[in-house]
Amino acid sequence: MEFKFEILKKSKTSKARAGKLYTPHGVINTPAFMPVGTLGTVKTMSPRDLNEIGAEIILGNTYHLFLRPGHELIREAGGLHKFINWDKPILTDSGGFQVFSLSDMRKVTDEGVEFTSHIDGKKHFFTPQKVLEIQLAFGSDIMMPLDECVAYPCAKKEAETAVKRTSNWAEQVRSLVSGLQSSVLFGIVQGGTYKDLRKRSAEELAALDFPGYAIGGLSVGEPQAAMFEMLDIVTDVLPDSAPRHLMGVGFPSDIIGAVKLGADLFDCVIPTRLARHGTYLSDEGKISIRQARLEKDFSPIDPTCDCYACKNFTRAYIRHLFWAREILALHLLTIHNLRYYMRLMERIRQEL
Amino acid sequence: MEFKFEILKKSKTSKARAGKLYTPHGVINTPAFMPVGTLGTVKTMSPRDLNEIGAEIILGNTYHLFLRPGHELIREAGGLHKFINWDKPILTDSGGFQVFSLSDMRKVTDEGVEFTSHIDGKKHFFTPQKVLEIQLAFGSDIMMPLDECVAYPCAKKEAETAVKRTSNWAEQVRSLVSGLQSSVLFGIVQGGTYKDLRKRSAEELAALDFPGYAIGGLSVGEPQAAMFEMLDIVTDVLPDSAPRHLMGVGFPSDIIGAVKLGADLFDCVIPTRLARHGTYLSDEGKISIRQARLEKDFSPIDPTCDCYACKNFTRAYIRHLFWAREILALHLLTIHNLRYYMRLMERIRQEL
Repeated sequence: MEFKFEILKKSKTSKARAGKLYTPHGVINTPAFMPVGTLGTVKTMSPRDLNEIGAEIILGNTYHLFLRPGHELIREAGGLHKFINWDKPILTDSGGFQVFSLSDMRKVTDEGVEFTSHIDGKKHFFTPQKVLEIQLAFGSDIMMPLDECVAYPCAKKEAETAVKRTSNWAEQVRSLVSGLQSSVLFGIVQGGTYKDLRKRSAEELAALDFPGYAIGGLSVGEPQAAMFEMLDIVTDVLPDSAPRHLMGVGFPSDIIGAVKLGADLFDCVIPTRLARHGTYLSDEGKISIRQARLEKDFSPIDPTCDCYACKNFTRAYIRHLFWAREILALHLLTIHNLRYYMRLMERIRQEL
Repeated sequence: MEFKFEILKKSKTSKARAGKLYTPHGVINTPAFMPVGTLGTVKTMSPRDLNEIGAEIILGNTYHLFLRPGHELIREAGGLHKFINWDKPILTDSGGFQVFSLSDMRKVTDEGVEFTSHIDGKKHFFTPQKVLEIQLAFGSDIMMPLDECVAYPCAKKEAETAVKRTSNWAEQVRSLVSGLQSSVLFGIVQGGTYKDLRKRSAEELAALDFPGYAIGGLSVGEPQAAMFEMLDIVTDVLPDSAPRHLMGVGFPSDIIGAVKLGADLFDCVIPTRLARHGTYLSDEGKISIRQARLEKDFSPIDPTCDCYACKNFTRAYIRHLFWAREILALHLLTIHNLRYYMRLMERIRQEL
């Protein structure tokens, strides 16, 4: 299947749109949420579990998979899809954010990023070409070019340099993938929380004519209002016809707001991470399964949910499993939280 | 369904037999292996996973479930089957072995066992009546009376006292459950590694006419030959018509040998525990998935196996998951190891 983005519906009151994203490994209904499969598995979930909750695409982390098990091993395995036995689309990120957030030491130059592994302290160097090569070994349906992600808050000069580098790196690799059938490369917009830098970054990336765009460097500590303001500026600049991935976002309210500002794709560790900390999500918000008041609560964790956990088990049972440190607790809460996100996206698409 | 044991086939060369055990929650083909669900879950496995690997009965631990979440909570939940959403048979043990092996302090008298919880050090007292009451709250298909398990090696006098108490306790509760439709009580044979004590214990229990018998206090450190010798003596005494559960056993070779000596039911944490330590089982023995030589081994962990893990993933992938501390590794290895045991029992039944 060739890469194509089809907009099927546009909101009359906002920039929201619903569509279909066609990739070599299948179609994704947008707006879509991508469960995060950091190390070649969405934590606690098997591929059949992911199919059951309705995942149409997952995200893999280039930084993590490069360190473990390494892209050469994944290449030998026949690519990431085959290695992890997931036959639907995969998007891999650029590693930029992980280098920024996880590495003990990093040194960014115009040539790339030198960083030390958070596992063994070994030094590595990511160039734009290297990051592309890694993702080509993965065989990702959607690849991301190396970008420089800055902290919040961040001095304007630093944010400006990051925008420049990110644009330069995108340009360096843009041409290398044209004509490729199995993968597409998105461009990444940076710019911190500076309106003019966000606009400039979006313009520079748009000029390179990518088949899709990611918006990076948000949800790194700035207020939600600032994130929305930046997104609004960026989606005014980016071409309407290309899908937009708001990277690393977020809580349900972030996603609902961002869809209205024209974002199509989301990924975030929140549902899976909260699950592993004993927190489940519902329309009532975040609820901890550890609470004493749930000890004898024999109702499902979310009575409105259709997931395996809610259809078959009680709060009392999952609470017991969690306190007894049983892995099944983490698995059931992960199933529910991801299904909650999938249903959220279904509702967003229906209500559009 | 009423409790009934039907012998369908007897070996001509050994004491082995194949049959069907009918319980209120379903039929079990024997010889059978029971996955251990210590705390209300077979570790890493959901009920549908257990159904998929072919489990027909699971074992629950009275000691563990009494401490967490407590039998009163399980009673309020509608019993153990409902609490954990497992609608097939459940056998619960007596707690005797766990008190013996896990508790920091225990004091056995003719009245029962005083012990301290391994979780919070709180004191508890198990009487034969209490242990029965707990299991009645669970609604177990097969219950076990309180027994006294001795260490290996053990002085004869101590072993003899344990036999006496175990018989006395069995007698105290035997009559309390006669006429019960939903549960049956087995008798437990003790006696350490003393032939005469094993014989006496079996005779005393048999005289009480239980619908089934457990053989306890074996696989606690004695050589396999001693275990087999004791089992041989016991199955000569116990009535042919009743099922025999060799508690806590064992490795495949233990099970194969014990079937030949007339044992029908087995339970053991070996397949699940080994999985969580990164070891998988096959006809070649125990193999560690951690090994460097498996790094690029893209074959299934056991090419002869029909489980979900073997049908869908490679050694290289599961090894990667294990080193990356991903829960999916433990889950996949558990599925395989339990399926390996289920297939072992299928083969044993077929070859009989």
